[in-house]
Amino acid sequence: MALRAVEHSQEAANGLKEKVLTLDSMNPCVRRVEYAVRGPIVQRALELEQELRQGVKKPFTEVIRANIGDAQAMGQIPITFPRQVLALCVHPDLLNSPDFPDDAKRRAERILQACGGHSLGAYSISAGVQMIREDVARYIERRDGGIPSDPNNIFLSTGASDAIVTVLKLLVTGEGRTRTGVLIPTPQYPLYSAALAEFNAVQVDYYLDEERAWALDVAELRRALRQARDHCRPRALCVINPGNPTGQVQTRACIEDVIRFAFEERLFLLADEVYQDNVYAEGSQFHSFKKVLTEMGPPYAARQELASFHSISKGFMGECGFRGGYVEVVNMDAAVKQQMQKLRSVRLCPPTPGQVLLDVAVSPPAPSDPSFARFQAERRAVLAELAAKAKLTEQVFNEAPGIRCNPVQGAMYSFPRMELPPRAVQRAQELGLAPDMFFCLRLLEETGICVVPGSGFGQREGTYHFRMTILPPMEKLRPLLEKLSQFHAKFTREYS
Amino acid sequence: MALRAVEHSQEAANGLKEKVLTLDSMNPCVRRVEYAVRGPIVQRALELEQELRQGVKKPFTEVIRANIGDAQAMGQIPITFPRQVLALCVHPDLLNSPDFPDDAKRRAERILQACGGHSLGAYSISAGVQMIREDVARYIERRDGGIPSDPNNIFLSTGASDAIVTVLKLLVTGEGRTRTGVLIPTPQYPLYSAALAEFNAVQVDYYLDEERAWALDVAELRRALRQARDHCRPRALCVINPGNPTGQVQTRACIEDVIRFAFEERLFLLADEVYQDNVYAEGSQFHSFKKVLTEMGPPYAARQELASFHSISKGFMGECGFRGGYVEVVNMDAAVKQQMQKLRSVRLCPPTPGQVLLDVAVSPPAPSDPSFARFQAERRAVLAELAAKAKLTEQVFNEAPGIRCNPVQGAMYSFPRMELPPRAVQRAQELGLAPDMFFCLRLLEETGICVVPGSGFGQREGTYHFRMTILPPMEKLRPLLEKLSQFHAKFTREYS
Repeated sequence: MALRAVEHSQEAANGLKEKVLTLDSMNPCVRRVEYAVRGPIVQRALELEQELRQGVKKPFTEVIRANIGDAQAMGQIPITFPRQVLALCVHPDLLNSPDFPDDAKRRAERILQACGGHSLGAYSISAGVQMIREDVARYIERRDGGIPSDPNNIFLSTGASDAIVTVLKLLVTGEGRTRTGVLIPTPQYPLYSAALAEFNAVQVDYYLDEERAWALDVAELRRALRQARDHCRPRALCVINPGNPTGQVQTRACIEDVIRFAFEERLFLLADEVYQDNVYAEGSQFHSFKKVLTEMGPPYAARQELASFHSISKGFMGECGFRGGYVEVVNMDAAVKQQMQKLRSVRLCPPTPGQVLLDVAVSPPAPSDPSFARFQAERRAVLAELAAKAKLTEQVFNEAPGIRCNPVQGAMYSFPRMELPPRAVQRAQELGLAPDMFFCLRLLEETGICVVPGSGFGQREGTYHFRMTILPPMEKLRPLLEKLSQFHAKFTREYS
Repeated sequence: MALRAVEHSQEAANGLKEKVLTLDSMNPCVRRVEYAVRGPIVQRALELEQELRQGVKKPFTEVIRANIGDAQAMGQIPITFPRQVLALCVHPDLLNSPDFPDDAKRRAERILQACGGHSLGAYSISAGVQMIREDVARYIERRDGGIPSDPNNIFLSTGASDAIVTVLKLLVTGEGRTRTGVLIPTPQYPLYSAALAEFNAVQVDYYLDEERAWALDVAELRRALRQARDHCRPRALCVINPGNPTGQVQTRACIEDVIRFAFEERLFLLADEVYQDNVYAEGSQFHSFKKVLTEMGPPYAARQELASFHSISKGFMGECGFRGGYVEVVNMDAAVKQQMQKLRSVRLCPPTPGQVLLDVAVSPPAPSDPSFARFQAERRAVLAELAAKAKLTEQVFNEAPGIRCNPVQGAMYSFPRMELPPRAVQRAQELGLAPDMFFCLRLLEETGICVVPGSGFGQREGTYHFRMTILPPMEKLRPLLEKLSQFHAKFTREYS
């Protein structure tokens, strides 16, 4: 900032005009946006990687990016069948190649038939290729035990983020005390806080109960809502299940409570269910909001508004880079749905390769197909390894003094709580840093391990956490967890 | 609306609550968004296609969608080399296949090396794969005769639309009479009006001069700016060159005038240059704003803020479905650029397949590469056919009485002006339709030809136009143009 001031005065001295677009004159809502998952700590990790490449000596030989749920960057091998289908769609000359199984070819031909000009290079309709929307609807029906799903309620998207932002955007209105409030969990995935800041909506925090494995408690929802009504108009409730960053899987009873609460309080429900395939803990099971809502019958089934999000970036595929996902809207007003369609059309269409991978994700090879066995084996191997890593993470962290980790029932992250000595907290404050940010920066500098401080997701005042993915390869994960625990012990000694 | 009223009263009678999210309670800015290119006329085209499939008799056998610049949907064959590279990246087993040329394999290996986990399935950094940003920078340097381009000023995007919306978003601030105003051409590509409506910014129209082949006149910019300053704070000027929907290619002198104007009036420049490879007319040449700006020297070169957009959806590739593009920012304040980086990071990254195709678009095979000859031949064939179609379109329309078409110097559209008889105008008004919308709907119903009325792009009061792409295959284009002209004659007779 000092440097900027000098520049400004020099410019003034030279008679030059200030820039049109400056920090002071830009969109203030954008300035307020924060996104810790790719924030300053990741910037620093990138710099460290560059220094390592340039031969600068460090106390570590590689940076481990455990900050983001990016499975393939951590070495997960792509599932073969979806990649085969996509390669065939991208370069249809391969349909004559003997190197591809018949079912991959049939699938690619079926998809290309449904594309404009029989090519992925054409725009699809804005909601996505109609046939793929139909396949998604059938997937949802199978998942939910036969409860009908209407393809016209499915909008394909550029990753789930895109769809989440679209639905939030529809909800945002009002000014001052009539501004739209949206209830989001604390801790949360910071896409939510970022989008609400960008739209100048009011973020209403409800706290998950760390003592009960990050359970969602309706009494806490009620408290948050009551307080929020003093200064905004709460209109929506976001739930992330399985939880990000917290890894809990909600019980059916809890989901029923949430639905009753949303209905009584007239809140539009956003169910972030992108980790629906990532459930590991024994006794845990994924229940979709759509299914529970429907089975609850009247008045909920036909009235409660819901948007449920899914993605190809997570699950067993981990195809983050392709940016595929969808939202299913339930009980949405028909005219609003038209408005949503219109809004989506301005951006033309979601990327077609992501649509293709989504199609395979929702309609995998059938038992009679030649690719069935391989696909199932690969899928199972990925999910089994994730389950083992979830267990290992919880176990190693809970052996470390001063660290306590709830079970990682689902998703891809641990969110352990750590004790930080008062002198460390004080030092952080002197540096103008959140105490857990201070810890994570020191961890990165000394070990090369990149994790995100809990302050980037929200946490109860005076508690400190970090989010670490469970994605590093098995042979690296245990040493990593131990190194992190040891660093915490050393850090604690240093500031005691 | 009548139906909705009945539903409401029934619900009230049943004691049911209204939905949380309705037309009345939703985001009013989203309601104001309009996007004609995929508007009601395209909805109707989709319905007609479905009716045809169901065997309903129509006066035509197929719907021709000349509403959107979607080359491959109209039968353009994808260029081989980029598709080969992408297929190899998607399914690296193919790197062992003898069916791919060596340069495609080398290129795919180089790209995969630059990706996280050497896979397209990993997120890239938010601004795009660093190596591809560097390739884009080198492309810009070649294009602009060696003027330097910094890869750190390049942000890859999900099509150009995504980048355009991001830059506009940064600029939007204020309320009431301090709201940000953005100058956009009339006629314009409706992404601009849609984004400004969504952001609650003020759309400031400047008119292109139809009498001078849609030239941009600084006197008109000045008029628009002066009037706008009464009710908003104009901060940015958008220019589309080559023009969409108007097809003009700006002269270097005109671009210099625009830059001087923007500098004097302190306007951030947005240069939509997605059709930079689509220049057909003899004597027309594309000049990038970046090049002109830099060659103008001080004070412009080092001060004038500019964002220039490009895309893989247009040009010779026409790879719309993959959603690839980029923006280069020039003279942007460093702190604002950081804010832009942060904002982009919330959406994680642009789709990697679009990044791969962009890489090939900006660094095609070199003369020594095995794929050079084929690539060049395919590229030239596409551009030569587009040039022939541009000429044919202008010619056939100008032979039709009551239709007048400026030369299609570039881009992919004609935007002819047509006379409509007063009785047709009156009939349209009775139906609550814009007169050219009425014409285009009748055209669609009777001939299956889908074009977009000029009212969706903006036009001078009392003039009527339509936008038609030049993309239908050559053998269909002439009959199509004649059919449209004949329909116009018939329509004119009918209402005279």
